[in-house]
Amino acid sequence: MVSERMKGLGTARSVIRELFEYGKVRAAEIGAENVYDFSIGNPSVPSPDAVNETAIRLLREQPDLIHAYTSAQGAADARQRFADSLNRRFGASYTASRLYLTVGAAASLCCVFNGLACPGDEFVVFAPFFPEYKVFIEGAGAKMVLIPPEIETFQIDFDALERSVSEHTKGVVINTPNNPSGVVYSKETLERLAGLLMEKSKQFGHPIYLISDEPYREIVYAGFEAPWVPHIYRDTIVCYSFSKSLSLPGERIGYVLVPEEVTQGDDVYAAVAGAGRSLGYVCAPSLFQQVTSICCDMTSDLKIYEENARLFVSALREMGYHVVEPGGAFYLFPRSLEPDDAAFSERAKQFDLLIVPGASFGAPGHVRISYCVQTDTIRRALPKFQALADSYK
Amino acid sequence: MVSERMKGLGTARSVIRELFEYGKVRAAEIGAENVYDFSIGNPSVPSPDAVNETAIRLLREQPDLIHAYTSAQGAADARQRFADSLNRRFGASYTASRLYLTVGAAASLCCVFNGLACPGDEFVVFAPFFPEYKVFIEGAGAKMVLIPPEIETFQIDFDALERSVSEHTKGVVINTPNNPSGVVYSKETLERLAGLLMEKSKQFGHPIYLISDEPYREIVYAGFEAPWVPHIYRDTIVCYSFSKSLSLPGERIGYVLVPEEVTQGDDVYAAVAGAGRSLGYVCAPSLFQQVTSICCDMTSDLKIYEENARLFVSALREMGYHVVEPGGAFYLFPRSLEPDDAAFSERAKQFDLLIVPGASFGAPGHVRISYCVQTDTIRRALPKFQALADSYK
Repeated sequence: MVSERMKGLGTARSVIRELFEYGKVRAAEIGAENVYDFSIGNPSVPSPDAVNETAIRLLREQPDLIHAYTSAQGAADARQRFADSLNRRFGASYTASRLYLTVGAAASLCCVFNGLACPGDEFVVFAPFFPEYKVFIEGAGAKMVLIPPEIETFQIDFDALERSVSEHTKGVVINTPNNPSGVVYSKETLERLAGLLMEKSKQFGHPIYLISDEPYREIVYAGFEAPWVPHIYRDTIVCYSFSKSLSLPGERIGYVLVPEEVTQGDDVYAAVAGAGRSLGYVCAPSLFQQVTSICCDMTSDLKIYEENARLFVSALREMGYHVVEPGGAFYLFPRSLEPDDAAFSERAKQFDLLIVPGASFGAPGHVRISYCVQTDTIRRALPKFQALADSYK
Repeated sequence: MVSERMKGLGTARSVIRELFEYGKVRAAEIGAENVYDFSIGNPSVPSPDAVNETAIRLLREQPDLIHAYTSAQGAADARQRFADSLNRRFGASYTASRLYLTVGAAASLCCVFNGLACPGDEFVVFAPFFPEYKVFIEGAGAKMVLIPPEIETFQIDFDALERSVSEHTKGVVINTPNNPSGVVYSKETLERLAGLLMEKSKQFGHPIYLISDEPYREIVYAGFEAPWVPHIYRDTIVCYSFSKSLSLPGERIGYVLVPEEVTQGDDVYAAVAGAGRSLGYVCAPSLFQQVTSICCDMTSDLKIYEENARLFVSALREMGYHVVEPGGAFYLFPRSLEPDDAAFSERAKQFDLLIVPGASFGAPGHVRISYCVQTDTIRRALPKFQALADSYK
């Protein structure tokens, strides 16, 4: 009587949610301070004061106007501020007419997949990957083609990519800095990817769009560089969210940028907007369109993520864990100490460590550690990680 | 290279938008006060002060917590407040576990259509109707079956309905008080509808869900009654939005209620939540989950809509216009003074009256007048309506 697919999605067991629920039960038993929950990717630093002050000011000064419908693509002044900011930062010349404001990065991706997908289309995704990509791509009626992880560096396995791109490939999705690995694609990786996609676009006679999912764009550590992807590959569509940069995940606000240079960009932009309409996105939340566009050159105080990363990586490596150095975001993706990452995650629970098996991200043999927590929590957790390692000796 | 359907939706001419754009151009020529724009359904009364004060208080008191992700179905405390309010008002016993908070009524409808739709399914809609229903239903892969308007009262043509309900009918959509007619379905209409749907559900061996789209629930005038639909028909799914009751259309916040009594209600709820996931709705905006749930027993000062309706209806009738009495919302749907409603709307522009042809709502020969405007605007517009009528004599 209901859609089996939707019912399945609505009742699916979520490993992360089950860890979270387990953590709550365990906290009641032994105290919350003794449970080390590294399962959830919720920003742990507050929004800049200016974000809340701007919201309060707008609610005071424009109590009626601020709640009105905006146009479907977003308020013109907000889009102009975002375009100006991008142009200042990246030396570009984007116009407000190619920004489409959305209800967060998930909505951005859904509008792009639904806007682009024609029958038979495929989107290429690199493991390890954010598992909702599969839900969104299949929801758009397309097929997800998964490239296995290149586990030494979590850059791209180009041989596997070359074999997987076909005439059916409508787009390739990248997410750098990456959830769950924390890895940032190097300029070299991006240039090689661009070269391959240009060649394949030419070979198949149609553009292959690069969909750059960038919620972690502003969280990049010293010694790493996250290049502006549209400067490297022309047919790039940017999906952005303010969830992490301004610590606003619950407010659901982001955008799609279809740069002027993109092949058939007018059609792409129209299709993204049409998809937003079909999916029921009337406009992005109006108060936070204004707040984020006024505050878009700020970020939360993100340096704690870098401190956490350095502390965690060096300590885990000393204990004998294999960890690829994260360049940003707020995740580590070490190898599990036995091949079965689910069994490893289960054993970690005996030490009250909550870490997510990598199989759900397409990379078995690893676990995801979210370190968007207080640094002290990591310090107190390290002996537990040591005990976990010792239990395998 | 892009989805033709989505591109079409993104570039479609919108009669309302064109009227709006025309109005702006005309306002620049003759002054905004001389253009009578009755085309847009944007609430004209401010939100209650308590709404903005509550938002400011939460931003002050919980600057971090208020922006965090909530669970996908909405924060538990917010859902409980909504359930408590419904239970108080309607003598029901709904639980928070059957409320799914959404990014507004459009999102509510999309989650319900996508959650329910199986291959070959149909949803029945009554003209005149909100034209995005067709976009949403087709976006869910289902077919919209339109029942022609019953133009004497804008209640339901039951003979036409009886002929149109089949084994393929998954649901029937009602919208009362109605956009665009302003009509409220009587208790008698709803009871007759419930009787027919119960009979047909039995005949076809599966429930036919009644999807009650209720953004105008709180805008009902003296002498009219909008009964609580789930009390009349068991298999009712309620789609709600705070856009009109609290004048918050831009903030995108509402809910789906799947009452405990609904047949296979657990599956329906799961499928609605699964659809939300597939469509990219991570959670409803977090600040306004709290604000609307704290303020859900209030409304904006809605009485101006009733005053506007009385003034407008009696004046238009005196001029010879045929208008079905609106019982709520903020729309009038008079007959056009010539059979071609588009030509009539075009002629109205000569008098600087912006009114929307009824054909786009499935009811040619009528026009929609949105009277969510200052009462003085209506008073000043009446001589124009008189002149428009005179032009046909």
